[in-house]
Amino acid sequence: MPGSATPASTSPSAGLPEVLAPLAADLEKVGDAYREILASASPESRDMVRHAARFNGKRLRPALSCVAARLAGSEVTEPVAIAAGIVELIHTATLVHDDILDHAEVRRKVATLNIRWGNHAAVLVGDILFSRAYRAAAYLEDPFASRYLSDVVGIVLEGEIHQDTVSHDPTIGEEEYREIIRGKTAALYEAALVVGAHYGGANEELKGRLGAFGHHLGMAFQIIDDRLDVTGDEATVGKSLGTDMSEGKMTLPLILWRDGSAPEGREAAVARIQEAWSSDDGAQELARELEASGALSRTDAAAQAEIDRALACLEGVPEAPERDLLGTIARFVVRRTL
Amino acid sequence: MPGSATPASTSPSAGLPEVLAPLAADLEKVGDAYREILASASPESRDMVRHAARFNGKRLRPALSCVAARLAGSEVTEPVAIAAGIVELIHTATLVHDDILDHAEVRRKVATLNIRWGNHAAVLVGDILFSRAYRAAAYLEDPFASRYLSDVVGIVLEGEIHQDTVSHDPTIGEEEYREIIRGKTAALYEAALVVGAHYGGANEELKGRLGAFGHHLGMAFQIIDDRLDVTGDEATVGKSLGTDMSEGKMTLPLILWRDGSAPEGREAAVARIQEAWSSDDGAQELARELEASGALSRTDAAAQAEIDRALACLEGVPEAPERDLLGTIARFVVRRTL
Repeated sequence: MPGSATPASTSPSAGLPEVLAPLAADLEKVGDAYREILASASPESRDMVRHAARFNGKRLRPALSCVAARLAGSEVTEPVAIAAGIVELIHTATLVHDDILDHAEVRRKVATLNIRWGNHAAVLVGDILFSRAYRAAAYLEDPFASRYLSDVVGIVLEGEIHQDTVSHDPTIGEEEYREIIRGKTAALYEAALVVGAHYGGANEELKGRLGAFGHHLGMAFQIIDDRLDVTGDEATVGKSLGTDMSEGKMTLPLILWRDGSAPEGREAAVARIQEAWSSDDGAQELARELEASGALSRTDAAAQAEIDRALACLEGVPEAPERDLLGTIARFVVRRTL
Repeated sequence: MPGSATPASTSPSAGLPEVLAPLAADLEKVGDAYREILASASPESRDMVRHAARFNGKRLRPALSCVAARLAGSEVTEPVAIAAGIVELIHTATLVHDDILDHAEVRRKVATLNIRWGNHAAVLVGDILFSRAYRAAAYLEDPFASRYLSDVVGIVLEGEIHQDTVSHDPTIGEEEYREIIRGKTAALYEAALVVGAHYGGANEELKGRLGAFGHHLGMAFQIIDDRLDVTGDEATVGKSLGTDMSEGKMTLPLILWRDGSAPEGREAAVARIQEAWSSDDGAQELARELEASGALSRTDAAAQAEIDRALACLEGVPEAPERDLLGTIARFVVRRTL
């Protein structure tokens, strides 16, 4: 389970299944719940819903829910599996809607729904996925998931809207960047742990610690994701490369470079970022400079700092193999690039 | 309250407020609940959410919820007002998403969200409206709205997907057309009455009768809407005209014309419909022929038949001024054109 389980490859899907091997049976239960939640599609929507459900990738969030339930002293019961499936389905629905008019043509090497069936169909199918997620939550006896997750979805969406409103603004600061990724990414990681812990019967303290672990893990995950957009390649990341650049998205490598690593000073750096957003040559040149200036190393360090915070949250969690597994997962998330 | 309250105008928004005058105080409560449900928007999303909420039109569904609650012997209590607000919000959210890539530029004389802020923002704001609706339902003590309305949303969406999949197919039959509008329109009218009745404390029988009334009213509403697309004008209907034609939507006037009123026989009629979908001249010529052949009168009769069915559902409902008001509303819906 420790370090040796992760091969040298930087592919996120190559190492993780081995890391998650101890959870195979639990993840099977979540998979069953996930399919059951989506089982009732109409004949006209069935193909599209199934296509969307294939986006289902690393199963990192469901794994986190299962581990949290076990740390609370529970098996992966039906409510735990359903709650974990709901969180994954919410993630899938946001992916379907994110692809609309983002010109993203490849997601985990499968054509996006909007390219294959059109934008309007993609909107409706995403809406169906959300409605099935909310429905499954509503039928749980304990209304916690229904209440908490509808709040979380709002936070995720507001994070995305925030990101859109500052699109092509090269002046936003690190704090605003962190506020955005807290909503659009970290909130759902936190939720994966919180619902697992809750339906596993955790007390508020354990729920809080595990939720905080999820928050910091999600922050690290997004920071690494933003860094991979600069340095990764399409084959290993499985999505179109340099999308952030072409979309005018301000990410941590750019912010750190602008605010300290750029030799030409802040004003010139801002101009260089704008240039990179409008030309491929400018983007490639800037990517080289981010590397050379040390901005990428500082980004890695920021991700590592979030992982350290995540691991610190585990200190109050009782010693157990599942606690070690959370640590392994956390270290895996940064090893995607380090 | 009876017939005299409705002026001769064919404008749907001109007559209805008078018809609904007895419900002014109730509708105020629903309006408060609706605004409260949307109150927590983030600074970045607030303007867009408020803009979307302005689409709020005739308040027909909230009125139906209030009347249903009163027929169950209840005041418009907080849960009734919230449930009514949720149904209206679901309607608003579907409108926001319907406008995406449907090239609809005007909705109730306000620029659509996607034209003003872009498709991606419209997707996200629609998602936020849905999340707030589900959230409000989740916080009601009685989980009925949460469970029932997440099902209803699925039915509405599947109706829309069904409609999209048969787009530009001039051969679909009346039964399939009815199946589509049952989902995309009638299900939410039915829901407006069902939740009002439920949170007003109605027994299952009354809930069933009022729900069935709502179903038939919704069917009539959509049939009339489809007819207005052929004959109405933008000023009175408040939305772009002839949209169904330009989108290749098969509506009841076309189906009835093709299957009985067209003098040239079915095969030639199918070709004429395809022509109307691809050229403005063809569409205008066909509109004249629909009128001349009697297909529009047959469409009106079909709407009237649904209203008659709706009124028949009221027969088992105890005599009360609110029951008469439902009758008035039902007759108003067809009088939009007759």
